Amino acid sequence: MSILNFLRGSKTASFTAQAIADHLKGEVEGNPDIIVSSPARIEYSKADSLCFLANPKYEKYLYTTKAAVVLINKDFELKAPVSCTLVRVDNAYEGIASVLELFEASKSSNRRGREPFSFISSKSKYGKNCYIGAFAYIDKGARLGKNVKVYPHVYIGENVTVGDHTVLFSGVKIYADCVIGAGCILHAGSVIGADGFGFAFGADGRYKKIPQTGNVIIEDNVEIGANSTVDRATMGSTIIHSGTKLDNMVQIAHNAEIGQDTVIAAQTGIAGSTKIGQRCRIAGQVGIIGHLEIGNEVNVGAKTGITNNVDDGKSMLGFPAMEASKYRRSFAVFRNLPELRNEVEALKKIVAKREENL
Amino acid sequence: MSILNFLRGSKTASFTAQAIADHLKGEVEGNPDIIVSSPARIEYSKADSLCFLANPKYEKYLYTTKAAVVLINKDFELKAPVSCTLVRVDNAYEGIASVLELFEASKSSNRRGREPFSFISSKSKYGKNCYIGAFAYIDKGARLGKNVKVYPHVYIGENVTVGDHTVLFSGVKIYADCVIGAGCILHAGSVIGADGFGFAFGADGRYKKIPQTGNVIIEDNVEIGANSTVDRATMGSTIIHSGTKLDNMVQIAHNAEIGQDTVIAAQTGIAGSTKIGQRCRIAGQVGIIGHLEIGNEVNVGAKTGITNNVDDGKSMLGFPAMEASKYRRSFAVFRNLPELRNEVEALKKIVAKREENL
Amino acid sequence: MSILNFLRGSKTASFTAQAIADHLKGEVEGNPDIIVSSPARIEYSKADSLCFLANPKYEKYLYTTKAAVVLINKDFELKAPVSCTLVRVDNAYEGIASVLELFEASKSSNRRGREPFSFISSKSKYGKNCYIGAFAYIDKGARLGKNVKVYPHVYIGENVTVGDHTVLFSGVKIYADCVIGAGCILHAGSVIGADGFGFAFGADGRYKKIPQTGNVIIEDNVEIGANSTVDRATMGSTIIHSGTKLDNMVQIAHNAEIGQDTVIAAQTGIAGSTKIGQRCRIAGQVGIIGHLEIGNEVNVGAKTGITNNVDDGKSMLGFPAMEASKYRRSFAVFRNLPELRNEVEALKKIVAKREENL
Repeated sequence: MSILNFLRGSKTASFTAQAIADHLKGEVEGNPDIIVSSPARIEYSKADSLCFLANPKYEKYLYTTKAAVVLINKDFELKAPVSCTLVRVDNAYEGIASVLELFEASKSSNRRGREPFSFISSKSKYGKNCYIGAFAYIDKGARLGKNVKVYPHVYIGENVTVGDHTVLFSGVKIYADCVIGAGCILHAGSVIGADGFGFAFGADGRYKKIPQTGNVIIEDNVEIGANSTVDRATMGSTIIHSGTKLDNMVQIAHNAEIGQDTVIAAQTGIAGSTKIGQRCRIAGQVGIIGHLEIGNEVNVGAKTGITNNVDDGKSMLGFPAMEASKYRRSFAVFRNLPELRNEVEALKKIVAKREENL
Repeated sequence: MSILNFLRGSKTASFTAQAIADHLKGEVEGNPDIIVSSPARIEYSKADSLCFLANPKYEKYLYTTKAAVVLINKDFELKAPVSCTLVRVDNAYEGIASVLELFEASKSSNRRGREPFSFISSKSKYGKNCYIGAFAYIDKGARLGKNVKVYPHVYIGENVTVGDHTVLFSGVKIYADCVIGAGCILHAGSVIGADGFGFAFGADGRYKKIPQTGNVIIEDNVEIGANSTVDRATMGSTIIHSGTKLDNMVQIAHNAEIGQDTVIAAQTGIAGSTKIGQRCRIAGQVGIIGHLEIGNEVNVGAKTGITNNVDDGKSMLGFPAMEASKYRRSFAVFRNLPELRNEVEALKKIVAKREENL
Repeated sequence: MSILNFLRGSKTASFTAQAIADHLKGEVEGNPDIIVSSPARIEYSKADSLCFLANPKYEKYLYTTKAAVVLINKDFELKAPVSCTLVRVDNAYEGIASVLELFEASKSSNRRGREPFSFISSKSKYGKNCYIGAFAYIDKGARLGKNVKVYPHVYIGENVTVGDHTVLFSGVKIYADCVIGAGCILHAGSVIGADGFGFAFGADGRYKKIPQTGNVIIEDNVEIGANSTVDRATMGSTIIHSGTKLDNMVQIAHNAEIGQDTVIAAQTGIAGSTKIGQRCRIAGQVGIIGHLEIGNEVNVGAKTGITNNVDDGKSMLGFPAMEASKYRRSFAVFRNLPELRNEVEALKKIVAKREENL
């Protein structure tokens, strides 16, 4: 028996359409008293669902949805009648984010206090209202701010600093001497401060480890995805600046520096000593080699491999990376390379024949 | 001193060639009483080994192997004499799988009961014959079926459900509200239900987190590889349907849905809200962008990057992905692009000369 | 407030320029008595820093650095005056590695003994001077050598062997029967011995698990990066030979064999049964498909996908991989494919016109 229909979304709280509209400064079109208790994607909606429509790919579901309420842009023109109540807002995508916060806030996950079986060195300190889960390990010299959440199985090494309100989910590992800012979220299994990958190839044909004596500094409001790794510097610091968000399984090598408010999608790797600017958008499975400088507001498409410095504002694609529009034009020809080759072959024959006849 | 020769395979039990043949409904060619106690690859076999030959690349080892017994297809024609005993079966590859189960069953790893230092909320429940390892954490509201194995350092969040006979290896982390089916195997370090990567870029130039209020549903008989990550949905559920197998370090983003009996090899990433059909075969290091629909029985070659919907039964390759045969034809020309360019240059010269002479 | 300027590098010990020079058999140029207490990258140096210059990209910093001492090659010619003291050595890059060891040795991280809340089976053994951290789990039959460091949250399965002086960082998971050599370093979250990805597609359209009965053997002096995975063999052993170094998130599939003194950068995956030679250098995000033989001293560029055997000493690039120089030549034409196509179009028109006129 399939469990597919079990728990598609979890009920958390209930709101009327009017309450949602008031919260978002929007307008109700339909029944203002209808109640929603579960945010849901429009293609999977049920009678108590609140949905949204922002991506036109999903418009087809609007006319058949069972959802009680759909959040929609003010300027959206209906192409057919709908049976749901609409809440019209300036920006449905921003609106749903705000509504999700309403639902999230109604959950009471405000854990505090210390569970049994935690290991906290007497030479460490932590502030008020922290949660220290079972099997958490806090080594000597560590200093945690207030309202920090340390889930079970977290490892906090010697002299680590963690700022206020930061959440470390289960299994996060932070090596000695690293610094984590305030308001950060580190997801399960992420590893901060493991040794950078540095070896010297000796005259005897064997590799010798170069000690990695630096640390990692993660500034405020950074989010790090599950099973991501940020290596400690050989000397000095590997740095993630404030507001930057890393998805799952992102690799940041030793001495790299990631500018503020940059987003990096899953499975991307940044090699050693590379410096990335602010507000960059780096897609998934990208690789950027070491010792480069990437400017501000650079966009990097999925799977791109960057091998040279990139100026501010550029969009890059392909491997080795080219400007995205140029790469697309080359790739458009690549798609029909056999035809191009055949044309060249045909020309060769015609020209050769002509030359023979001369 | 090398430890290479230490423990190449572990001894578990002993069977005669005849017993193997009887079990597989095959025929013995050679000594039916010879004893094997260790399954091994044919190129590393020893006197007590049971090997198999399915891939023709390994045929050369058949004529020199020291193995006691080799499993081989009924229709396989020997090109030289062999010193081992053969057991001929309809399908040697399926046969070895069955024999490995024989050996596996002879191991007594049937752990039960609760080890010291485990943390089990009084508001959680688990069925008969479970194994709860040391340092396992089971939060309130969690419900585990019978015969579940929870290895050390597993984290099971609030309200998580785990079906009968499921095995959670050491260090698996399951966030709150997720649902794991029966007969599943989750390997060490896999993370289920971390927040999806959702942020809204604000007018102030900074990112704001979009709460990820949904969950993950993993249906029955799913296997998830080591250090893989399956993110919770923004709303509703991220779903892995029954019988599907993920290799190590596979990333499944929020609201993705993977059809049943699909296999996904290591280091592949599926972006948000993408829906993949049944019985697909997706190779390693593949990326599939968000909001796509991939049909049933689709084959995707290694390192492919899919950027558009794919119909049932297609084989895709390259980045951006093309039909595999078309990609191969284009790539064959790519290999010789310098020659093609030289031919064009030569033609240009001839034609230019001819034009001059007109 | 930014925490950027907090803890860029950590102070550990102090040395004079002369002491550094004596240690490296180098020569002081400047003040032999000046004191350094913190190794740092030249672009981030402070008054008490010891820096080095090996990569010419960083030469510009030499003339403006505030560092007390810079390590530099004997034959390096200054292009402007410097205010720092120089220590000239044969090889500045090897020199800095040696100096970092000096600083590292001055740290007292020599942990020993058993912390509370560790789980050690009475049927396991460990040698002298081991460190067993809190929440470490050592199952029956496990044998650890002397001076082994087992950090918190490490899982050591049944019958695992770990050699002398090996360090297992927090959260390392080693499944049953695996063998880890002496002098190894396994970083946080790495998983050794999870099941290989082996399933037989049945006549019923569903996958059946092939038991993975083998183990993993990791020889001496191997380093494995954070969150990397090395799967156990179906039969026999997956082997990492001595001196080999894996970066973070590297995937080694079942029955693969990696030769000694090979380095593999982050996010690379080696598929099943592939054998890689000695002293290979494999860059990041590389994929190598299964059942291949890669020779000794092979270089593989970033993001390369290898689909065929590779002979000793080759350099490979691209996907599907070609010899690196050949790939670069083809890619150079790819960059200008639209121009090539336009040239062919122009030629077609000229030739067609000519043909018309005949």
